[in-house]
Amino acid sequence: MMDYAPYFAERRDAHLRELKEWLSIPSISAQSVHKEDVRRAAEWLADALKRAGLENVEIHPTAGHPIVYADHLHAPGKPTVLIYGHYDVQPVDPLHLWQTPPFEPDIRDNKLYARGATDDKGQLFLHIKAIEAILSTEQALPVNVKFCVEGEEEIASGNLHPFIEAHKDKLAADAVLISDTELLGPDKPAICTGLRGLCSLEVSVRTANTDLHSGTYGGGVPNALHALVSLLDSLHDKRGRVAVDGFYDDVSELTDEMRAEFAKKGIDEEKLKRTLELDALYGEEGYTFAERVGARPTLEINGMYGGFQGEGTKTVIPCEAHAKITCRLVDHQDPQDILDKVERHIRKHTPPGAKVSVVQGEKGRPYTIDPSHPLLRQAGSAYERVYGARPVFTRDGGSIPIVEAFARVLSAPVVLMGFGLPTENLHAPNEHFHLDNFDKGLLTIVEFLKRF
Amino acid sequence: MMDYAPYFAERRDAHLRELKEWLSIPSISAQSVHKEDVRRAAEWLADALKRAGLENVEIHPTAGHPIVYADHLHAPGKPTVLIYGHYDVQPVDPLHLWQTPPFEPDIRDNKLYARGATDDKGQLFLHIKAIEAILSTEQALPVNVKFCVEGEEEIASGNLHPFIEAHKDKLAADAVLISDTELLGPDKPAICTGLRGLCSLEVSVRTANTDLHSGTYGGGVPNALHALVSLLDSLHDKRGRVAVDGFYDDVSELTDEMRAEFAKKGIDEEKLKRTLELDALYGEEGYTFAERVGARPTLEINGMYGGFQGEGTKTVIPCEAHAKITCRLVDHQDPQDILDKVERHIRKHTPPGAKVSVVQGEKGRPYTIDPSHPLLRQAGSAYERVYGARPVFTRDGGSIPIVEAFARVLSAPVVLMGFGLPTENLHAPNEHFHLDNFDKGLLTIVEFLKRF
Repeated sequence: MMDYAPYFAERRDAHLRELKEWLSIPSISAQSVHKEDVRRAAEWLADALKRAGLENVEIHPTAGHPIVYADHLHAPGKPTVLIYGHYDVQPVDPLHLWQTPPFEPDIRDNKLYARGATDDKGQLFLHIKAIEAILSTEQALPVNVKFCVEGEEEIASGNLHPFIEAHKDKLAADAVLISDTELLGPDKPAICTGLRGLCSLEVSVRTANTDLHSGTYGGGVPNALHALVSLLDSLHDKRGRVAVDGFYDDVSELTDEMRAEFAKKGIDEEKLKRTLELDALYGEEGYTFAERVGARPTLEINGMYGGFQGEGTKTVIPCEAHAKITCRLVDHQDPQDILDKVERHIRKHTPPGAKVSVVQGEKGRPYTIDPSHPLLRQAGSAYERVYGARPVFTRDGGSIPIVEAFARVLSAPVVLMGFGLPTENLHAPNEHFHLDNFDKGLLTIVEFLKRF
Repeated sequence: MMDYAPYFAERRDAHLRELKEWLSIPSISAQSVHKEDVRRAAEWLADALKRAGLENVEIHPTAGHPIVYADHLHAPGKPTVLIYGHYDVQPVDPLHLWQTPPFEPDIRDNKLYARGATDDKGQLFLHIKAIEAILSTEQALPVNVKFCVEGEEEIASGNLHPFIEAHKDKLAADAVLISDTELLGPDKPAICTGLRGLCSLEVSVRTANTDLHSGTYGGGVPNALHALVSLLDSLHDKRGRVAVDGFYDDVSELTDEMRAEFAKKGIDEEKLKRTLELDALYGEEGYTFAERVGARPTLEINGMYGGFQGEGTKTVIPCEAHAKITCRLVDHQDPQDILDKVERHIRKHTPPGAKVSVVQGEKGRPYTIDPSHPLLRQAGSAYERVYGARPVFTRDGGSIPIVEAFARVLSAPVVLMGFGLPTENLHAPNEHFHLDNFDKGLLTIVEFLKRF
């Protein structure tokens, strides 16, 4: 098999310049002020796919952000691979914690810093360049290729779900290939065989019809923040478990085999504490960190606010307070069922004098694939050849809501072949992508496509 | 005694125009961006005092915002009254809840809407115009008058305390007169004989050294918001009491006499609930609303924030979270002692994996005056003459931290003669001043000065 290393080495600077250009477009799907930026990122992607030699490049408008499609179907009798990724990114606040601005990509210490560097523009870019490399070198691809790239992954893929249903035939494939997950660590490749589901809700508490002076009213009226704090504190028990009735009903206990597989990840909890500068890890009693993150459901408060947040003191009794909550789901947990249970708990625990409103949001199911699937073995060999190590099969704590839908609607296995690192601050300030995995990722994808 | 009603009626429009000019200066003492505005408000006040006929008008710079002094000492053998007030105002957010902008004064329904309309520019303005009226009509005042007006009342009067100590002789007076409190209701005058003390602190929780992705880490690491929520929820028990060890040590139980006096306020709790659109009032078990607010200490969360607050969902585990807390104090509670006790509680209840920092802020002691003091009787007669009703002696839940200092350092009784209404949204959006009490306040002050 041909060695593509010199090809990529020669073009490395040009490739990185190109990626930086894409990363400098603030395609934050969650914020309507960036709608135009998201569109620009889609157009940039369509151009890049054309330059790579892909055909039938289309930007499909949706009710939200567009879906970009492209294909190259000139390998008759060969399997078809559908490559999925997303060109939208997470919001960037708190902005003051970024060392360089999130949309001014900067390379330091062989790491590319920018929002979207690893999640997911950087990883998706590897596929475009791997295909461009094979096409321009060999004038043909070893498989048929389709790209389906969305701009709403960070906001739950609301329009991609019906798009897949409506374009089943167009998207038909023998496998779906996604790079939006992680290695275990530098030179420790991993193939993800399970993803947690995700559901979200927003809780608002209202007390009086206006903020009140804490001198005139303090001690005699409900305080929206006190009510919300009491409500939220009731969601977990003292053993770190979610205290919502029936929350664990559809979660099976871990078998000894599964515990053994998690142990193989070899996560050093002491080292993790040092890295994160934590005095203690925290979670459900009776599970290791790997088990908690890989196989247990969660309920997290992602944001909360109410009352006075400015400089100084304001002696006010706030009349409204808000919280954003997401749950990660596993096994047979159904997002709608969990949202209903959490909402029921919230209504039941609302303190006197408070009125609560709940808005349900995203709903993505958990996904798993059998680690013995032949395609995963091929992917494993590709990693081994480039990284010099066989990948571990892991279950990842993250959620890619669309994975379960692809698998179900297209009846195709989904290969989750990630090149990120767990330390790359995705969804947080100073997101980055280690360029060692940029280089190795390009080669691994070429290897995999050729072994397909 | 001469009737000043025609005098004030004739000048009403001009007086309101003048007051609106002052109210349009955003003198928010808590926000450093408004430092220059606070200075402009002080200069406006100095000019107004000069126009009123006061002498020795001085703007004293301090380490913070200036103190304005003026006097008129041409009544030999007569008592001296020191008039105190403040020209600074509270912050204005949440701005979107204001019906008209806080610094564009607007009269609707005989109410003057603006930040500071009732607290305290509007009320202080009454004294300036009352004195101007007597001076311009009778060319003499019945008493010697001094003004001492600060720009830091809303941020705990940090520089006025040492100023009073350093200028004891200059400020010497037989009584201190303050209009920064409330009537019981329209045509129900009240004289405040007790004020709660105030202390403040800010709590910050830190967990990991960066925000983390809730997929990769969720369920396995501490969440700063969970930790803060648990910490804050521990500050009250299920009976609405502050759960901090020793918090009530220096609070005496209410006597039957005191309960009877509170009952006289005649607060209709059902009506209060309707006015505030509350399903239920809330507070310490075993006390009425009036008792809770007038004679019981509190701990209130005034603001809280952490994590993602924007539009949409962000699956982040926040690494920091913040809360602002104030306590209202009564009886012999010492602000420093209470802050230390609350801080000790917070440190003791910090959940695993969280690091807490506490910054102590304001410290003001509670104040009381004997309701049978002769000056309070005179003030009562002045109200009765204008309002047609004898005032009730009340203990107010609010705090004017400097009152206790004036009384102690100058050895003078402090007469708290307020013209605000409990419904005027002070410290909240849509603060206003009912102009009926603007008109009656002017006459009441003239009456009181003449009876002194």
